[in-house]
Amino acid sequence: MECYLDNASTTRVDDEVASLIQELMLKDYGNPASLHSKGFEAEQHIRSARSFFCDVLKCRESEIVFTSGGTESDNLAIIGTYFVKRRRGNHIITTKIEHPAVSQTIQYLAEVGAKIDLLDVDRHGHIDLAQLDDLLSDKTSLVSVMHVNNEVGAVEPIAEIGRLIRKKQPDCLFHVDDVQGFGKIPIIPAECKVDLLSVSSHKLHGPKGAGLLYKSDRTKITELMHGGGQQNGLRSGTENVPGVAGFALAASKLYGSISEDHERMKALREKFLLDLQDIEDIRVNGGDVPYIISLSIKDIRAEVIVHALAEKGIFVSAGSACASKKLQISPTLSAMDVEKWQLESTIRISLSAHTTQEEMDYAAEQIKLIVPDLRRFVRR
Amino acid sequence: MECYLDNASTTRVDDEVASLIQELMLKDYGNPASLHSKGFEAEQHIRSARSFFCDVLKCRESEIVFTSGGTESDNLAIIGTYFVKRRRGNHIITTKIEHPAVSQTIQYLAEVGAKIDLLDVDRHGHIDLAQLDDLLSDKTSLVSVMHVNNEVGAVEPIAEIGRLIRKKQPDCLFHVDDVQGFGKIPIIPAECKVDLLSVSSHKLHGPKGAGLLYKSDRTKITELMHGGGQQNGLRSGTENVPGVAGFALAASKLYGSISEDHERMKALREKFLLDLQDIEDIRVNGGDVPYIISLSIKDIRAEVIVHALAEKGIFVSAGSACASKKLQISPTLSAMDVEKWQLESTIRISLSAHTTQEEMDYAAEQIKLIVPDLRRFVRR
Repeated sequence: MECYLDNASTTRVDDEVASLIQELMLKDYGNPASLHSKGFEAEQHIRSARSFFCDVLKCRESEIVFTSGGTESDNLAIIGTYFVKRRRGNHIITTKIEHPAVSQTIQYLAEVGAKIDLLDVDRHGHIDLAQLDDLLSDKTSLVSVMHVNNEVGAVEPIAEIGRLIRKKQPDCLFHVDDVQGFGKIPIIPAECKVDLLSVSSHKLHGPKGAGLLYKSDRTKITELMHGGGQQNGLRSGTENVPGVAGFALAASKLYGSISEDHERMKALREKFLLDLQDIEDIRVNGGDVPYIISLSIKDIRAEVIVHALAEKGIFVSAGSACASKKLQISPTLSAMDVEKWQLESTIRISLSAHTTQEEMDYAAEQIKLIVPDLRRFVRR
Repeated sequence: MECYLDNASTTRVDDEVASLIQELMLKDYGNPASLHSKGFEAEQHIRSARSFFCDVLKCRESEIVFTSGGTESDNLAIIGTYFVKRRRGNHIITTKIEHPAVSQTIQYLAEVGAKIDLLDVDRHGHIDLAQLDDLLSDKTSLVSVMHVNNEVGAVEPIAEIGRLIRKKQPDCLFHVDDVQGFGKIPIIPAECKVDLLSVSSHKLHGPKGAGLLYKSDRTKITELMHGGGQQNGLRSGTENVPGVAGFALAASKLYGSISEDHERMKALREKFLLDLQDIEDIRVNGGDVPYIISLSIKDIRAEVIVHALAEKGIFVSAGSACASKKLQISPTLSAMDVEKWQLESTIRISLSAHTTQEEMDYAAEQIKLIVPDLRRFVRR
């Protein structure tokens, strides 16, 4: 049985989405910039996608910029605002648990003159609003806080953060990396006082190579890529029409049943953890969302259990998703101040709306067999 | 009959390429960064693609950076080297006929301190090596010259330019925008002393949203996008596996028959121009390559004939491909010093290896009917 439980890393493209992409590659393959009807057809797909995202984010068409993915969206949001705002203030506040697409981009800005403060998190992975309040000053030009943490599924209080910033420093911009939240937890940027919001397609059964940045009209940014002036000059380059259309279709399919899927994944998670309760010395980290299960398994290195499970057709990840081959110490778990053994022995099991009871049962059953087996070698 | 002759703008994805992409979206959909076999499978597709491009470009694996397309490749090459080299020299030389992805990126650098010189072209669209020689100084850090011009198909003498630069200013880097040449005219960067070469997938029957930058190992660049550190840290972000694999397959299919396709397109072009010879007051611009036909048709505005042809199912473009909706005066035609009427009355008919005799005959037949018809209104 093949059991893909690494959906926070990437997802299988939805069948209907794949068919749409196929169709656009072969039929409506024009360049949206072209004057003729082949161009108009292509442009129409970009317009429909934009209109869908405007509906769910309750925003204007000018506020959506399509990108090549979450990393580009984060870079565009952070670098693009810094060079506009740095004269007013070069102070950026972020958290200790951001994805590298945010943390490394801010690190780069630190090298070119930005002053950075990192918010701590508690053992649940939550930031402290009082610390943010203390750090916010009239020199703070940007606060960047993720919505859902990619490693442990902690949910940050985006609306409260937004209100605090808008009240205390109305000129300070608020960026949210929503790569792990979009399509699973509804969010309306304007209501949460969010100025910039990054979304990725391949985390929600859409194709790789597509994403978007929501950018409120009040927010001025400089572009990362110069050229033909597509997308109001904010992102030059021929639009990836099949990618964008597939992204929108994938997102719209998730949006059709967010709360049912949430409840179903919650039940899957609860049953799964119940199934594992007899294994000793395991610990669950974070877990505000049902679809990310961070599991520390004492005495077994994460990569060992990842490989053992893969042999059974079960795909999970060690530590963080995206650059996990490096096997660095997880900044999220470190910041959550977990016990030292957990830093090397934590895996992430990540569900999607497509995950079935059968898959979760099979995974639990195999973990129950594998863990004692692997421990026999280290514990004798 | 549908007759797509706007292949310099974008191309229909090859059927086999579309099938491969479909398969990778649904089967080998893993994240190359993942530790498990689903990740390895995905990584394998990136490796094979890289290996193919290394074979044709005769370069090392570390010299290929996959990007989201030609625009990103151009930006990465130009911006990425400028911030490494500007202390040694902030002088950049380019031509008057570059694609906006190059010209606008260099224009941006001019705004942040670069000193720019623009090479003239003659009436065939060719630069003058003597002018380049005059302008090259020890302050020149980058020369950027396109291989094949996107509007008129002029071919620049890349090997001679490379030799001149390497001889006179060996530390100066040479970037080539090869978006309109790759897969049609073989090029080996090291032999031509090219340090950076940009390629796009969607111009050669590959998918939109993919491209690459060849970057010689001797060339140091800073990344445009920060994050997970994929591709040796030069381009963070989950690789677009289906896009990259489809790009490589599309390119490999073209590489299988470059000279046959060239001869065939040459014959198509010759017959086509012969068919049009009885129309008075038309002029062909540039045309070193058979697959780009720039045609000035006196007394008819480009957009009028583009629309009239589109009604007959024939898709061509007005002026430049990529941002042609703007209907700006073509910088290429202006630089070539064409007659004033040509600036408003030039269309581009662009072929690909898939273009058939039947399509070209139909296009010629319709142009012969439409031109006198449209002229009747303006010439009475």
